[in-house]
Order: sequence, then structure tokens, then C-alpha cells
Amino acid sequence: MKYSTIVIGDELLIGQVTDTNSGWIARHMAPLGWESQSVRVIADDASEIKRAIDEAFSLTDLVLMTGGLGPTKDDITKATLCSYFGGEMVLNEDVKRNVDEMFARRGIPMNRLTASQAMVPSSCQVIQNEVGTAPIMWFEIDGKVLVSMPGVPVETQTMMERAVIPRLVKHFHSDVDIEYRTFVVIDYAESALAEKLERFEQEMPDYIHLAYLPAQGVIRLRLTGTHSDSKSLNDDMERLSKQLHKLLGKSIIADADKPLSQIVGERLRELGLTLSTAESCTGGNIAHVITEIAGSSDYFMGSVVSYSNDVKHRVLGVDDTVLDTCGAVSQPVVEQMVNGACAVCHTHCAVATSGVAGPGGGTPDKPVGTVWMAAKVGDIVTSKCLHFTGSRAQIIDRATTHALIMLLKLLK
Amino acid sequence: MKYSTIVIGDELLIGQVTDTNSGWIARHMAPLGWESQSVRVIADDASEIKRAIDEAFSLTDLVLMTGGLGPTKDDITKATLCSYFGGEMVLNEDVKRNVDEMFARRGIPMNRLTASQAMVPSSCQVIQNEVGTAPIMWFEIDGKVLVSMPGVPVETQTMMERAVIPRLVKHFHSDVDIEYRTFVVIDYAESALAEKLERFEQEMPDYIHLAYLPAQGVIRLRLTGTHSDSKSLNDDMERLSKQLHKLLGKSIIADADKPLSQIVGERLRELGLTLSTAESCTGGNIAHVITEIAGSSDYFMGSVVSYSNDVKHRVLGVDDTVLDTCGAVSQPVVEQMVNGACAVCHTHCAVATSGVAGPGGGTPDKPVGTVWMAAKVGDIVTSKCLHFTGSRAQIIDRATTHALIMLLKLLK
Repeated sequence: MKYSTIVIGDELLIGQVTDTNSGWIARHMAPLGWESQSVRVIADDASEIKRAIDEAFSLTDLVLMTGGLGPTKDDITKATLCSYFGGEMVLNEDVKRNVDEMFARRGIPMNRLTASQAMVPSSCQVIQNEVGTAPIMWFEIDGKVLVSMPGVPVETQTMMERAVIPRLVKHFHSDVDIEYRTFVVIDYAESALAEKLERFEQEMPDYIHLAYLPAQGVIRLRLTGTHSDSKSLNDDMERLSKQLHKLLGKSIIADADKPLSQIVGERLRELGLTLSTAESCTGGNIAHVITEIAGSSDYFMGSVVSYSNDVKHRVLGVDDTVLDTCGAVSQPVVEQMVNGACAVCHTHCAVATSGVAGPGGGTPDKPVGTVWMAAKVGDIVTSKCLHFTGSRAQIIDRATTHALIMLLKLLK
Repeated sequence: MKYSTIVIGDELLIGQVTDTNSGWIARHMAPLGWESQSVRVIADDASEIKRAIDEAFSLTDLVLMTGGLGPTKDDITKATLCSYFGGEMVLNEDVKRNVDEMFARRGIPMNRLTASQAMVPSSCQVIQNEVGTAPIMWFEIDGKVLVSMPGVPVETQTMMERAVIPRLVKHFHSDVDIEYRTFVVIDYAESALAEKLERFEQEMPDYIHLAYLPAQGVIRLRLTGTHSDSKSLNDDMERLSKQLHKLLGKSIIADADKPLSQIVGERLRELGLTLSTAESCTGGNIAHVITEIAGSSDYFMGSVVSYSNDVKHRVLGVDDTVLDTCGAVSQPVVEQMVNGACAVCHTHCAVATSGVAGPGGGTPDKPVGTVWMAAKVGDIVTSKCLHFTGSRAQIIDRATTHALIMLLKLLK
């Protein structure tokens, strides 16, 4: 069964805020058999909102809408929905109580603009927002459903899980099963992987589809199958998964869509090893992606972000003479950094980076994008130099990814 | 003048990848007078692509399209565009040479799938992709223009700047000026700010619009004006900017849409001060956002990510007894951490965090979301405890933002 997503907000259209709700919704609807038909991002504008709803209803029976529900004047979604679905704006006592309680808990007085959040179209059923003040509104018309939710990600996401998804499951009945399998693959360029899998793809049943999702040295392969018989779908997915493992061997580093930092963390936990980082050009980003994973304090002890040579020398113990003669972006420096990280943070393993993230600071010898990196596991230290292209942010991201891949290869 | 954006890719619809191209395009088209009509995210599916183009052309004369141009089988955009705009697929010698050279530079042999990238519809004009292999295609039909670009952000963004935008400027002529002004505001909740600005908004000319873009303790206010007379538009925008400054005073921390880390960096540079961080629950994220800013090595020296108590004690010099009696998430610990960071990294200023990012690790006394933070500038140290809600990632993000705001207040 398909659904449409409408994302409302001038701030999204103008590119000041990136929509992450639609992706979250898709990831959480898919396992329940709902397939995203399209995502449409539009302005806070009544005629745009009406046109988008008309179009979405022409394609799908379910429309999920986020945004446009705050207390300020640029939010006109509620009035538009009232005019679209009929009825009039009425005070909802439950919403008023919820807003009152929310403000009382935060210890701030409710003002008039916030009070207006308790006004809702009489044509909707209200789902209480347990983590914010803007109500969730459920509309039904001619067997179709539209659910309007706030734009604040934590509110949409919390309330989707707690209330909207359970209600959708009750309301709709899906008779086609969807199954996804994701494999995280290293060692291949996208085109080389496609060539390797050409025959595999030709032999797949036509109700199973393979997609390539490349991102910085890692390719996620996704099998998607839809079938009315869930048993045979599951059997086919199992068979194809095994074939992929046989074809790609150790290049498959995970059987589910997880970030590299989580794959690294799981491996460290299995082996009972601890990790630290010594970061120059990545500026703390490796430590950041590692500590984004819940429970990372079990294996991650800490990091020294040695942005200045002074910190590299004094804190990590990198030799002053080596810094002077070879420069900070060099093999001996990253090797001393990775040893320094293990010594300072008392860990079994470490990764280190030193490079030119740009846009300034490049030289003919070491142009922007040059990154030396090292990984250490026990007594084994490996190091290499990579050359990345792209913006500063992209070079930092890519260096982070490749440092984690380097560590992962040592952990295998 | 308005344009539409079509973003193609199963991986985006299913939520495995977040679209950032459309936002980038909007931010770079707006200053040139182009307003985004809508963004539509659709599947790698011929009929969806055709429907989206039809609909976009019914609303705007310009359609920018990204994605669906890689060498693998799930990319069918090129064939669909050929069938939509007419003609046949032909080998483009310039694209072939570009792909050949790109592979030669990388030192890897070109395979058959990559070679197919040199095939393009005869109905398009090709713009050479200087940073990738998939060509950019410019189609014209009945006075309307569609530009198809690859999905890889660095390719789209580089080639938009180098070739597509200059060509669009030549091709179209815009007679209405658009002007944007953005103000970064702290100290206010959205509803309180809206109340404060109610009269200001009522008195604005009707061709100027005010939007509120709240995000974690910071609200971005955006004035948008459209007018055929650019002089009087500019005068009005100037006048309104001055009024906003008068109304909000020091709560406006920047006059342009910049990240907090850049605002902090500019302030440090003005004052000739250096910065370090000592991070527990933020796990290196403060160092990361600071070093995302080009030139940050001028004022940022380094960081100690002290995830374990052992690193807090040995590297930052936090008192063992204090760790034992008060716990790591406490005022004396973050104050000792911020002093330790300045001492270890030899800096004038520092920020420190210690908290419970969750989802585990909470206690009745210190539930998930409890974060102690400290800032130090010269001899002055301030500290406070905040309570955040949301996911682990959101708590880390919010603690990062509030630590930077805390530092900024000390730097004013």
C-alpha cells in the first residue's frame, strides 16, 4: 500500500532547514508494508497546500503531512485544512489542557499565540501531542485519511511511534508483504560491484529489486521484495542473501543498515577491546560518530583532538623534530599520534588522522584533500595516505569513514 | 521567477539517504531572484518521472532535477528523459573523453557500465561534469527548460556553481528582485518572540514577509521581500533590519544565516583569543562543529574528549575524590574540566560538558538529558545544568548548541 508525504515550510523550500521527517517516516512505515509514493515539499501557502493534498489523494489513500503547525503567523496549515475538510475552528478542551500542563511543567506563562494552538478544525479527530503543544489532526474523507503533524522532528517522530502508526495499522489493512534486506559493502566501486552482480541481478525473481546506495567508500545494497505470499517472499530473500554473501565474502561488513561506527563498536565489544582517537583534520568527528552510538562508553575511552602542533607534541608525545622535518601531515606523525592516543587514553586500539581539509592550507606536495591516517590494534599499526576531493565538510566526512574502514579491516 | 525541483531516487524515498541537494540549490538560486515553487522526491520509475515533469512544467518554466544518473541498473532517468523530450540515445564523444580521463586519473580501468554514461539523449545539450562521470543534460521544450544533474551532492553543487547557474542567468531574465535578510536570535522562545514582534509585523509593507525558523535555543528570523523596484525594496529592508536590532538588542547574535560555531569563531578572532574543549557527553561534537569552519585552526587548538573517568582524571586533572563523591555529571567536574582544557591545550577559553545522553545511564537524580556545562574566558568560569529531551543524537546536538551559546555570552 502506498502513501504520500507532504512537508510544509518556507524554511525547507528556501533551504535553511533540511527535511528529515519524511525519511524517518519512510524508514518506520516500510516495515509495516507502506511504500512511499512521493514526498512533496511546499511553502506555507494555502493554495499550494490544497493543490498538494488534491494531487496526493489522487495517487494514494493515505497522506502524511508534517509542518506548518507552530504558534506563529507564518503557519497557516490549520486554517487551510479546516477550509479543505469543512467545519469550523473550535476550541478543543483536551488540547488546551495539554498546552496548559506543558507550560506549567516548564514554569513559563502561556501567551495568547500559544493559546491559539488549542483551536482545531471541527472536521478532525485530535491526537494529543505528548511532547509538544501543536495537536496532531486526523482527517477522513471518502475513505481516505490525512494526518497532519507538527514539523519539529522529535514531536512528529515520538507521536508517530506512540499514536499515529498504531492507529494507521488498525485503520488500514495491507494484504501485500514488503521485505527489505540491506548489506553494507566495502572494497568496491559502484560500477565494479554492478558488474560483479550482473548475473545475480538477471536471475532474481521479478518481484525483487536490487538498489545500490553508495556513500563514501561504502556501498549499501538493498533488496526489496513485494509479494502476497509472505512465506515464499521470505524464502526467496533468504536464498538471495546467502548468494550475496557467497559472492562478496568479507566485503560484506554488515547484514543490516547500520552506520560504520556501530559496526566498529559491535566488533570491539565482541573482541573485548577499547578504542581512542587522535584527530587533527577530522577535528573530533571520529569521536563524535563513535559516541553517537548508545553504549559506546563500554569501549570508547576518549580522544585527543590535536589541532595545533603544540597539542600533538605535548599531549600525544609526537616528536618535535619529526613535526619540523616531515610536517604534521605525514606518515611518522600519524603513527606517533595513534601510539600516543593508546598511551594517553589507555586503550588497545586507536585511529589517527592528519590532513589538509581545506579550502586553504594546501601545497603542491600536499594539496587540499591529502589525509594521512593510521590505525592500531594491539601491537599492529597500519598507515596510509588518501586523497579526497570535495568541500571541507566532505573531506572531513570521507576521512572519518576511511579511518573507520581502516580500523575495521584490522579488527577482522 | 519560480522553479521546481525534482529529486529522483528510491534511496531517498525509503529514507536511507537524506536529500540535501534541493536545499543547497534553493540557497544558491534565491540570491539570483529564483524562488523555489516546490521540491518533489520520487522513485527511480519512468512513469513517476514523467508525471513529475508534467506537473512541474505546468507550474514553472524551469525544472531542476537531481539524481538517477549513476551507472547502475536502478538508474533509468536518462532513458525516460530521452522518451519524454524525443530523439534517441547517442554516444557523446566529449562525455566519453571526460569519463576516460577521469578513470585514467584515478588509475582504474573503465568498465562497460561506466562506458554507458557517455550515451545521452540526442535532444539534450550536454554540460560536461568536471568532477564526476555522469553528464549534466540541458533540455528545452516550448520555451521551458529542464536541467538534469547527478545525485552526488559534490557533483551537483560544483557543476551548478561552475556551469548551470551562469547558463540559467543568461537564459532567463528576471524583472522582480528578491531580497533576504536573516537574523540569528537567542534568549527567546518562538511564541515569546512572536509576541514581542507582533506590532513590527503588522506594520511591515505587504510585500515583505517575516518567517521564524526555530532550532534548539536559537531562532533564525528571515525577512523576505519581493519588489520590482530594487532601490525601494533595499531601503525598506534596511529600515526593518534597524528596527529589529532596536527591538531585540544583544539577542541578535548575527546578521546573516551562519552556524553558531562560525559566530563564535569570528568573535574569538576579533578578540584574539584561543579555544579548546573538554567533552564528555558531547563526545567530540563541539570540537567537530568548530573545526567544520574553514580557518578554525587560527583560534582552535584542540580538545580532550574524556569519555572515561580515567581520562578526565589523568589528562584533564579532574580530582578523583570529586569524581567519586559528586559523580562525573556535576558542577565541580565540568568546572575542573574547563580549567583542565585551558591548561592542557594552552588556550584562553574553553567549554566543557558532562551529561547523560541516554538512552541508558539515567538515575532518578540525574535522568537522561541532564547535562552540566561550563565555559571559561580568561579568569571567568560559568557553569550550569540543563535538562534536554529527545533522542541521544538530539541531546548531543542541543548540549553542543547550548555550550556554544554559553561561551558566546561570555565573549560579548
